[in-house]
Amino acid sequence: MITAKEAALITGAVITGNPDEPINTLANIEEASPGELTFLGSSPYEKYFTSSGATVIFVKKDFNKSRTDITYLEVEDPARAFYTVLIRCFSPDYPLEGIHVSAHIDPSAKIGEHTAIGMNVVIPRGCRIGNNTKIFHNTVLGENVVIGDGCLIFQNVSIREGCILGNNIILHPGVVIGSDGFGYIRDEQGNPIKLPQIGNVIIEDDVEIGANSAIDRGALKSTIIKRGVKIDNLVQVAHNVIIGENTALSAQTGVAGSTKLGRNVIAAGQVGIADHLTVTDNVIFTAKTGVSKSIPKPGIYFGHPVKEQKKAQVLEAHVRTLPEYAERIKALEAKIKELEAKINN
Amino acid sequence: MITAKEAALITGAVITGNPDEPINTLANIEEASPGELTFLGSSPYEKYFTSSGATVIFVKKDFNKSRTDITYLEVEDPARAFYTVLIRCFSPDYPLEGIHVSAHIDPSAKIGEHTAIGMNVVIPRGCRIGNNTKIFHNTVLGENVVIGDGCLIFQNVSIREGCILGNNIILHPGVVIGSDGFGYIRDEQGNPIKLPQIGNVIIEDDVEIGANSAIDRGALKSTIIKRGVKIDNLVQVAHNVIIGENTALSAQTGVAGSTKLGRNVIAAGQVGIADHLTVTDNVIFTAKTGVSKSIPKPGIYFGHPVKEQKKAQVLEAHVRTLPEYAERIKALEAKIKELEAKINN
Amino acid sequence: MITAKEAALITGAVITGNPDEPINTLANIEEASPGELTFLGSSPYEKYFTSSGATVIFVKKDFNKSRTDITYLEVEDPARAFYTVLIRCFSPDYPLEGIHVSAHIDPSAKIGEHTAIGMNVVIPRGCRIGNNTKIFHNTVLGENVVIGDGCLIFQNVSIREGCILGNNIILHPGVVIGSDGFGYIRDEQGNPIKLPQIGNVIIEDDVEIGANSAIDRGALKSTIIKRGVKIDNLVQVAHNVIIGENTALSAQTGVAGSTKLGRNVIAAGQVGIADHLTVTDNVIFTAKTGVSKSIPKPGIYFGHPVKEQKKAQVLEAHVRTLPEYAERIKALEAKIKELEAKINN
Repeated sequence: MITAKEAALITGAVITGNPDEPINTLANIEEASPGELTFLGSSPYEKYFTSSGATVIFVKKDFNKSRTDITYLEVEDPARAFYTVLIRCFSPDYPLEGIHVSAHIDPSAKIGEHTAIGMNVVIPRGCRIGNNTKIFHNTVLGENVVIGDGCLIFQNVSIREGCILGNNIILHPGVVIGSDGFGYIRDEQGNPIKLPQIGNVIIEDDVEIGANSAIDRGALKSTIIKRGVKIDNLVQVAHNVIIGENTALSAQTGVAGSTKLGRNVIAAGQVGIADHLTVTDNVIFTAKTGVSKSIPKPGIYFGHPVKEQKKAQVLEAHVRTLPEYAERIKALEAKIKELEAKINN
Repeated sequence: MITAKEAALITGAVITGNPDEPINTLANIEEASPGELTFLGSSPYEKYFTSSGATVIFVKKDFNKSRTDITYLEVEDPARAFYTVLIRCFSPDYPLEGIHVSAHIDPSAKIGEHTAIGMNVVIPRGCRIGNNTKIFHNTVLGENVVIGDGCLIFQNVSIREGCILGNNIILHPGVVIGSDGFGYIRDEQGNPIKLPQIGNVIIEDDVEIGANSAIDRGALKSTIIKRGVKIDNLVQVAHNVIIGENTALSAQTGVAGSTKLGRNVIAAGQVGIADHLTVTDNVIFTAKTGVSKSIPKPGIYFGHPVKEQKKAQVLEAHVRTLPEYAERIKALEAKIKELEAKINN
Repeated sequence: MITAKEAALITGAVITGNPDEPINTLANIEEASPGELTFLGSSPYEKYFTSSGATVIFVKKDFNKSRTDITYLEVEDPARAFYTVLIRCFSPDYPLEGIHVSAHIDPSAKIGEHTAIGMNVVIPRGCRIGNNTKIFHNTVLGENVVIGDGCLIFQNVSIREGCILGNNIILHPGVVIGSDGFGYIRDEQGNPIKLPQIGNVIIEDDVEIGANSAIDRGALKSTIIKRGVKIDNLVQVAHNVIIGENTALSAQTGVAGSTKLGRNVIAAGQVGIADHLTVTDNVIFTAKTGVSKSIPKPGIYFGHPVKEQKKAQVLEAHVRTLPEYAERIKALEAKIKELEAKINN
C-alpha cells in the first residue's frame, strides 16, 4: 500500500485532495473501487469519471476537477504516470528463497548468489545458473544449460540440453526451450528418417516467453531469440529461426524453420510465417496473416496470401461488391442485346 | 459391467431379448463387438445394423427387430439413452486417494475432506482446496490459490498465485491458469517495458479446460470464465477476457485481451477473436473465423474478416464464378466494339 | 569427433585433401567454421563456397576443386552423404541411466531391461515399459499405460491411463497423450453435460510427437496414430481420429474428431481439418488451409474453404484483378450509354 503523496512524488504530479489517501491497488476507471488509483487518459473514458469508485486519479493538467470526493494527481501523461506507479510500487515479488531440499542439483552445476530453486527442480551436470534468478517448482533443465542473472523461470518449464539464456528472462509455465526441430529425410521406401537436431537455442537478455510456447533447437547451429523479444502464449518458433530485437509475437503465432525476422516486427495473433523467409524491420502483420513470401519493405500486412494492408482492404471491398458487379454485368448483357436488336432492325 | 436389464431400468427401455445379456462397454454401431452396447439413432447408420457386432442395442420404438441374435432396448431417444448409460454406469473414477507423502503442502494450506493430492504436487502457503477434489501428480499451485469441491486437476497443471476456482472443474494435463498477460509499454527508445500483471483468474463452477490451454491472469483485475464454459485443447484466453456461461471454445481458438464473449457462444476450431470486442449470446463462429469486430447479433458467422455465414457463402460463390465473370466482361467488350463499328459505318 | 577418412568410409566418398582432417561437428555451408563438415548440394549455395569456413566438404563428383585449403569428399549425392554422417556419427545419446530413487514406480509396473527412468517420474499400477526406453524427469503416466522398446519420452510429458505406445517413439516435452475429447450433450436447460471419454490412444512404432502437442483419447474406442507418423509442436489431434502411416502434421495443425487421414498426407503449419472427414493418401495441404470437406483425390490443396491449389491460384489471380474488372465494367457502362445516345439520335 502507498499513499497519493507517494504516487505524486514518483511521477511529479500536483495533488489536489488528500495527500494521505491510501492506494491499495490500481484499476481501470470503469472497474475501480475505493482505495484504488486509476487514470483518465483519452476522452472515450471520460464518461466513467462521474461514477468511478476510484479515490485517487491521474488526470491531465487542464482537467475540470468537478468531483470533490476524489484526490487528483495532475500530470502531463496520466497513462504513463499510472504505469510508472504500477511498475515501481506494485510489481509482484514472486516469493521463492533458497534451494529446496527436493531439487535435484548435480554437484557439477554452478548456482549463483541469491538464486532460488524450487521443489523437484532438476538441474543436471554442467548447468550454470547466474545470480538473483528464480526457478520454480517441477521445472526440468537438460545438461549444460546456461541461465543468466535475474531470470524468472516459472513452474513446469522444460529447457533441453545445451541451451543458453541471458539475463532478465521470463519463461512462463509450460514453456519448452530446445525441443527437436521437425526435420526428416525420406529413405528409399519413402519412410521418414529423423535428422538428429544437434543445435541449441540462444535467448538474449530481456526476453519473455508465454505459457506453453515452444522454441525448437537449431538443426545444426542455433535458433536465436534476440534482446527484448516478447513472445505470447502457445507460440511456435521452429529450428534455425532468428528473431530480431524487440520483436513481438502474439499468441498462437508460428514461425517456420530458418526464417529471419527483423527488429520491431509485430505479429498479431495466429499469424503464420513460412520457412526460409526474411522479414525486414518494423513490419506489422495483422491477426491470422499467412506470410508466404519475404517482406523487404516495412509496413502493415494482412491476409492469406499476405498483402499490404491497404491493397488487401481495397480487394476485400471489391469482393464485398461482387454481387453488385454480377448484376451490372447482367444488366450490360441485357442492354447490349437490346441495342443489338435496335441496330439490326 | 452391467446387464441389459440394468440399462433398461435406468432408461425406461422395453427389452426384447436377453435381460441378462452382459454389457462390458459401449461402442458406436460400426465398431461394436460382442459384449458391447450400441445405439441406432439416425438413418445414415442403419446400414451398419445387419453386420454390427453389438449384442445389446438401443433402438426407436417402431424399429423392425429383424435380427434375433441381439437384445433390443426400445426407447424414445436411443442416443440420449445410450449417453445416459455411459454417464451413469461407465464414468471413469480416476483413482487417487489420500495425500501422497511426496506432495509439498504448506502448513498454512487448507485441504478439504476426501480430497486427494498426488505425488510431487506443490501447494504453497495460503491455498485452500475444497472437498472431494483430486489433484494429480506433479501439478504446481502458486500461493493463495483457491480450488472448490469435486474438481479434477490432472497432472502437470500450473495454477499461478491468487487464482480462484469453483466447484466441479476439470483441468486437463498441461493447463496453465494465471500466466501473465501480454502487456507492455514502450520506453523513450522504443524498447518494450513489461507491465506487471497483478490481477488473477476466476473460474466458476462446471468449467472444463483442455490439455495445454492457457488462461492469462487479468492485468489489474480478473479474467473470468463463467459457469459451464467448456474449453478444448491448446486454447488461448488473454488477460481481462470474460467468457459467458456455457460458451464453448474448440481447439486452438484464441481470444485476445479484454474481449467479452456472451452466453452459449460456440467457436469452432482455430477461431481468433481480436481484443476489446463484445460478442453477444448465441453466436456461432465456424472454424478458422477471424473476428475483428464486435458481434451484436446472434447468428452464424464465417471467414476472415468475419461475415454472416449466408453473406460469406454468397461472396464465396461469386469468387468461384470470377473466371466466368472475366469471360463475360471480355465478351461484352468485344460485342461493344462490334456494335460501335456497325454504328459508325 | 571423427575424421574426414571416417566420413568417407561411411559414405563411399573419394577424398581429396587431408584424410585426418578432424570433423568436430556439421554445419550448413554459409555457417560452417574450421573443424566442421559441410556439403554443397544445389547451385544456389555455390556462392558460399569460396568463403565457407568449413574444412571438410561433401561435393558432387564433377566438382571444380578450386580451393586447396579444404578437404573434399566426392559423392553422388552430397546432401544424403552429409545426413548419413549426421545420423551415424552425431546422433545425441540423451544420457539417462537406471531408475532414479525419486521416481514413483508401482510394484505392479513392469520395467524392461536397460530402460532408464528419471527423477520424479510417476509410473502407477499396471504400467508396462519395454527395453531400452528412456523416460525423462517429471513425466507422469496414468494406470495401465504400455510403452514399447527404444522410446524416448522427454520431461514433463503426460500420458493418461490405458494408452498404448509402440516402439521407437519420441515424445517431446509437454506432450499430452490421452486427454479427454471435447464431447458434450445438452440437458433440457441447454447446459452442456460431459460425455465420459472411455477410449484410449494407440500410437504405433516410429512415431514422433512435438512439444506441447495434445492427442485426445477416443470417446469410446481408440484414437490411432499409425506407424511412422510425424507430428510437430502444438498440434491438436481430437478424439477418434485415425492418422495413416508416414503422415506428417506441421506445427499448430488441428485435426477434429473422428476424421481419418490417409498415408503420406502432409499438412503444413496451422492447417485445420474439420471433423468426420476422410482424406485420402498422398494429399498435401499448404499452410493455413481449412479443410471442411473430405478429400478423395490426391493432390495439393490450399485455402479456406479448401480448393485444389491450381484452382485457388486462378481465383486468387482473379481477385487481385478485381480493381481492373471494376474499371472495365464502369467503362462498358459509359460506352453503352454513349452508343445508346448515338442510336437514339
